[in-house]
Amino acid sequence: MKTLGYYNGKYDLIENMTIPMNDRACYFGDGVYDAAFSRNNVIFALDEHIDRFFNSAGLLRIKIPYTKDELKTLLIDMVKKVDAVEQFVYWQVTRGTAMRDHVFPGDDVKANIWITLEPWNIEYKQQKLKLITLEDTRFLHCNIKTLNLLPNVMAAQKAKESNCQETVFHRGDRVTECAHSNVSIIKDGIFKTAPTDNLILPGIARAHIIKMCKRFGIPVDETPFVLRELMDADEVIVTSSGDFCMTACEIDGKPVGGKAPEIVEKLQNALVDEFLEETK
Amino acid sequence: MKTLGYYNGKYDLIENMTIPMNDRACYFGDGVYDAAFSRNNVIFALDEHIDRFFNSAGLLRIKIPYTKDELKTLLIDMVKKVDAVEQFVYWQVTRGTAMRDHVFPGDDVKANIWITLEPWNIEYKQQKLKLITLEDTRFLHCNIKTLNLLPNVMAAQKAKESNCQETVFHRGDRVTECAHSNVSIIKDGIFKTAPTDNLILPGIARAHIIKMCKRFGIPVDETPFVLRELMDADEVIVTSSGDFCMTACEIDGKPVGGKAPEIVEKLQNALVDEFLEETK
Repeated sequence: MKTLGYYNGKYDLIENMTIPMNDRACYFGDGVYDAAFSRNNVIFALDEHIDRFFNSAGLLRIKIPYTKDELKTLLIDMVKKVDAVEQFVYWQVTRGTAMRDHVFPGDDVKANIWITLEPWNIEYKQQKLKLITLEDTRFLHCNIKTLNLLPNVMAAQKAKESNCQETVFHRGDRVTECAHSNVSIIKDGIFKTAPTDNLILPGIARAHIIKMCKRFGIPVDETPFVLRELMDADEVIVTSSGDFCMTACEIDGKPVGGKAPEIVEKLQNALVDEFLEETK
Repeated sequence: MKTLGYYNGKYDLIENMTIPMNDRACYFGDGVYDAAFSRNNVIFALDEHIDRFFNSAGLLRIKIPYTKDELKTLLIDMVKKVDAVEQFVYWQVTRGTAMRDHVFPGDDVKANIWITLEPWNIEYKQQKLKLITLEDTRFLHCNIKTLNLLPNVMAAQKAKESNCQETVFHRGDRVTECAHSNVSIIKDGIFKTAPTDNLILPGIARAHIIKMCKRFGIPVDETPFVLRELMDADEVIVTSSGDFCMTACEIDGKPVGGKAPEIVEKLQNALVDEFLEETK
């Protein structure tokens, strides 16, 4: 198949798939998701993505109707049905199908499992990004990977219209994360990244880059940093599961980073190598 | 028909309706809604709801594919198809159907129009509410009636599990609104309600009760009030389109209000009379 959409056991090309109007995704965005990339039918870092997915669901008291192993098996089975070496693997769970009512439906209503798969061309050679900054107006549950993504949508669109690739959110002076990535900095040889509180998503690429920093003896500082430090950084690092470790060359039209290319290259190579090794 | 679900020109019983998996509601909650009540095929305060709906969509740059008059005609046509004197009339618009991508789809992708109708029994005699309070962790766009409602869902469920009917949100000390209503107070003969900034929805029942206060010579103070004032109020007023003007008798287990019943009764009667007159 060229793409695959899955909903509670049924699957077809995504564009042929329909779901019930009363799925609670439709009225409330009442669900959580996770996403990863596959190559050669291996989904990279799947255990970590599955753990985070169950954690997101648990924080919102959504009962996933599968065990972790069952879900992993299902995802891999579906990936094998799509004719593409590299795929974007996306899945979500929503709090069931019921007449619209804010309160949870009864225990007889089971959560719905969704999967979408599409061919992808993973970019191993990283481009330099142009970023914009925007006040972070999102809710205070950014540690949960929910379907309530309107501020992220608006920020992504604003970046595009500014001929940029991502938006850096900040709450007042404090840098939180990007609209669909984490942001970190390198300054004086130290890797600095926001702590994983309720203001940022605990990114899996972020966790991997921290692991690589530790392997290379690069000190990691997980305390909040501010806009001035972002603009002054030796390197501005943007991480997400599909893009490994990218750097920014410009923020709000001003040049940034580019002063520690050897550290960046080391990290980029290590992350790409890890991906290629696991999915070979 | 017993209920009605409508999607881009197709309609059926809600439970029979399906929508495309790639509707942006499903991944991002990328849409806005409004809701009102009808009686005798008349939708109460429809112009105000339609104005707010277009305003919500405009703030998120969603282009509604109808004029206000076309949408009003469509809603009334659909209401006539449902066999119920009183109905809950709900409609939403979502930013089209396209492969998942945060940025807006191209201009060739039109927004999707959804309607759901269900029979309702409007309660003209108001019950006294028990409320809980909860820190307001929502995003900073509460003036827009969006489909990003997870904090509201969690708050409604928490109220239910506390044997209460609604949740009062507060940001620090400042009372904002309830999970799906506005909250106001009466103190020393003055009606006090939060201003319509980005922290609350500009409720239509709220606007009507302010109009009634002015008619009766009750002073209205639209400045923020705090939790202590809520607990100390002569009356705690909860307003929403389906429930006119309700009062609370208890918040977090402590008795509140009940000290200005003559003002409450005057406002309740005026709001119910207005509804019955417009929909007779």
